[in-house]
Amino acid sequence: MLTLYTAKGSCGTASHIALEESGLPYEAKLLNLGAGQQRDPDYLRINPKGRVPALITASGVLTENPAILFYIASMASAVDLLPKDDPFAVAAILSFNAYLSSTVHVAHAHGRRGSRWADAPEAIAAMQEKVAENMRASFLLIEDEYLKGEWVMGSGYTIADPYLFTVAGWLKGDGVDIEEFPKVAEHHARMLERPAVQKALAAERG
Amino acid sequence: MLTLYTAKGSCGTASHIALEESGLPYEAKLLNLGAGQQRDPDYLRINPKGRVPALITASGVLTENPAILFYIASMASAVDLLPKDDPFAVAAILSFNAYLSSTVHVAHAHGRRGSRWADAPEAIAAMQEKVAENMRASFLLIEDEYLKGEWVMGSGYTIADPYLFTVAGWLKGDGVDIEEFPKVAEHHARMLERPAVQKALAAERG
Repeated sequence: MLTLYTAKGSCGTASHIALEESGLPYEAKLLNLGAGQQRDPDYLRINPKGRVPALITASGVLTENPAILFYIASMASAVDLLPKDDPFAVAAILSFNAYLSSTVHVAHAHGRRGSRWADAPEAIAAMQEKVAENMRASFLLIEDEYLKGEWVMGSGYTIADPYLFTVAGWLKGDGVDIEEFPKVAEHHARMLERPAVQKALAAERG
Repeated sequence: MLTLYTAKGSCGTASHIALEESGLPYEAKLLNLGAGQQRDPDYLRINPKGRVPALITASGVLTENPAILFYIASMASAVDLLPKDDPFAVAAILSFNAYLSSTVHVAHAHGRRGSRWADAPEAIAAMQEKVAENMRASFLLIEDEYLKGEWVMGSGYTIADPYLFTVAGWLKGDGVDIEEFPKVAEHHARMLERPAVQKALAAERG
């Protein structure tokens, strides 16, 4: 049994969806980030970073969304969420997910978590002003260069898809209309039709 | 033959070292970031992100350091840079590298690339003021929680090691003394004794 610690609206939704797709037995535990549950001492013993997601496995705890997604896909035997026998294809998926985590998620975070990178209120406000521009630039690149077909990598659904779906879900709150990116918008709609996505989102709504 | 595009002092040094360790045939091409070569139209056709590193392989181009490191380790047959048969161990390495790319590299980038996230000069200055604090917090976590032994993952040298070495090399410029973190400092010294590290660094010095 795997246990995923995540939070509504966080990047952990991607791992939640992947678990639901995987057929692996799991339990999702939802933290309330607004109430600061990610900094609770009990949780810090699980994940000293004080962030979500975290996945408790029989071998130990994993943190960081790209790593958790890789692990879920590696352990799933009933479905192919990763072309395990093709190192280049796996690396291309890791590359897409790394872009989401280290550039796009970071661009988004400057709107809500600016205090991570500066203390002055004026600086935090200046960061917020640039979020829409940076999210737009990232999604233009995804639309034009990286979203290859029905799914991110082309014809096969992989662990890149729930991650893109999750991050694209932040666009509206960041002041960007997803319809500016027709392929991303179609991907988003396609994802919403998947039972695993519906089930994970329903669980997070509570 | 693999071709790595990288730059002196960039995170691409990690991939450069990994290639040198791997025994795979490769060529390193150094871009001058100060001269803006990463935005040259010819390079943008290789990597539309305008960043380093990028790896040209027989199957296509890979970007993002964590993905390139994974690919190099997957293709290396003469040395073990990744415990390929243990999904949890691979995911733990991906987790460590994801933390470096999406948290520690990002913390560092606010000192030199603040204009990515705000336009006002005062905001960029406010970001610079917080770099040392954030780098110190990240390295405290690495020192206390994640650096497990002689090498990052314990007794075996993996693709987590050249990445930690590269990012730890930025501490001095960020106003943090590596000696605050004895295990990290010992790891750094141990890395400098490796012929592959010496060769990659010499090539980058030119």
